[in-house]
Amino acid sequence: MLTNPASDRVKRIRRLARRPGRDDTGELLVEGPQACREAALAGLVRDLYATPRSLALYPEVGAAVLASAGRSHEASPDFVRAVSLASQGMVAEVRDPWAGWTVADGLAACRPAAGSPVGLVAVFEQVRDPGNAGTVIRAADAAGADLVIFADQSADPTAPKVIRASAGSYFHVPVVRAGPVAGLLAQLRASGLRVVAADASGSVVLGSARLSQPTAWLFGNEARGLTAGARTGSDAVVRIPIYGQAESLNLAMAATLCLYASASQRRLSPSRERSR
Amino acid sequence: MLTNPASDRVKRIRRLARRPGRDDTGELLVEGPQACREAALAGLVRDLYATPRSLALYPEVGAAVLASAGRSHEASPDFVRAVSLASQGMVAEVRDPWAGWTVADGLAACRPAAGSPVGLVAVFEQVRDPGNAGTVIRAADAAGADLVIFADQSADPTAPKVIRASAGSYFHVPVVRAGPVAGLLAQLRASGLRVVAADASGSVVLGSARLSQPTAWLFGNEARGLTAGARTGSDAVVRIPIYGQAESLNLAMAATLCLYASASQRRLSPSRERSR
Repeated sequence: MLTNPASDRVKRIRRLARRPGRDDTGELLVEGPQACREAALAGLVRDLYATPRSLALYPEVGAAVLASAGRSHEASPDFVRAVSLASQGMVAEVRDPWAGWTVADGLAACRPAAGSPVGLVAVFEQVRDPGNAGTVIRAADAAGADLVIFADQSADPTAPKVIRASAGSYFHVPVVRAGPVAGLLAQLRASGLRVVAADASGSVVLGSARLSQPTAWLFGNEARGLTAGARTGSDAVVRIPIYGQAESLNLAMAATLCLYASASQRRLSPSRERSR
Repeated sequence: MLTNPASDRVKRIRRLARRPGRDDTGELLVEGPQACREAALAGLVRDLYATPRSLALYPEVGAAVLASAGRSHEASPDFVRAVSLASQGMVAEVRDPWAGWTVADGLAACRPAAGSPVGLVAVFEQVRDPGNAGTVIRAADAAGADLVIFADQSADPTAPKVIRASAGSYFHVPVVRAGPVAGLLAQLRASGLRVVAADASGSVVLGSARLSQPTAWLFGNEARGLTAGARTGSDAVVRIPIYGQAESLNLAMAATLCLYASASQRRLSPSRERSR
């Protein structure tokens, strides 16, 4: 059992709490049973550190780690807490499946077959809050998106808090970083995507938007919305109707409605629901 | 200018941070410029306490308070912080528009005309997190719901954190507390509502659900979902399709999709968008 919260190993793991440590190694710090489980099921956990109690509560996580040739370590509550206060008894060093990926890599990898266009992409511009960022990755995953792009000074998608808020969806959909949206538009269109901005100023109401084509949705900052450049550079600007007196929806709700509207118009079959 | 963070007035306001203080007085503690603005526009603010800086940043809040015969006080940052750490320079003592309301009051008041049935009700069963609870009030407001019911040990809807997370939507839609859902079903049906449960076990997919009738949606606990009693007592159990590998959506996302699906089938016109 690992027990020393001041050990070199704790220091090494904690380097992954900061972006340079992640960028240097291509590894992630993953916190909590839910995100650790999704990372383990994706075969990406190198080292799992868990208290005896959490290993007993979530035996499937340790089993999935061992099945993919990862290492599972029993650790004391003090050890795990020294790594992360948000661990709920379980943290892991995980290989980042999207380390070093560019937008071009993401667009190329998402095509199910050569020549077939990408179906659904979510682009986040200046989305700053890690909790929001993770939640929208989860929404994109649930709606069957092929790629998520964090553009123009958005939160770092590799941050532990983002991955935790994504409930493990980070490991299901490629997530890449990009610069300003203006520099992305041509690349998205060259991949066969129609660019649709979600903005309260939109002239098209969501229920009337044409979304059966491959679509890249643009979502803006939590407080300010999209930049003028992103709005004017889009093929359409779509607004979500407000039926009551609320001024707006928050980012995660808006993104969920838009991405599900696309999913519904694409007439895909839902995935087989997983048993818990 | 009010400056004494140890004053009796601070102590009086702080009593509203706890439920007995709110239930005894029928008043609320409202934190932050956004929620204070919505309370003021609804004519409900009795006393506003704001730093000179926040009054200058949000002059419309002070103006709305005075226009509705409330009092606006300049207060030092220390005073405001002593009342609430989440104030962003502005807090208010506010009359609770739904104080003492029962479910029957809510159902009766929502009828636009005698004999006309209520259109859309959201019922939350054992929703525990105040941030989630507030977010779903916002979703219900945006989707044009007529009533929100916090049933069966849900978070207290009058808590400052709920009202803040609702972005002021608490003042737009009646919000009432209730006991277990089983005891509510007959009352909802007697008001002409069809009861639809949102649950991953549902046999009907959201896109195929019949929602043009007046509907009461049931949403369950963040982790466990609805109780068996709520599911089996409903007229239909509807699930949200998952197109990717996500296990589920979170409560706020799920409620937003369900309530907007109802709004869309009711073919209402969106409200006139408010200018900011």
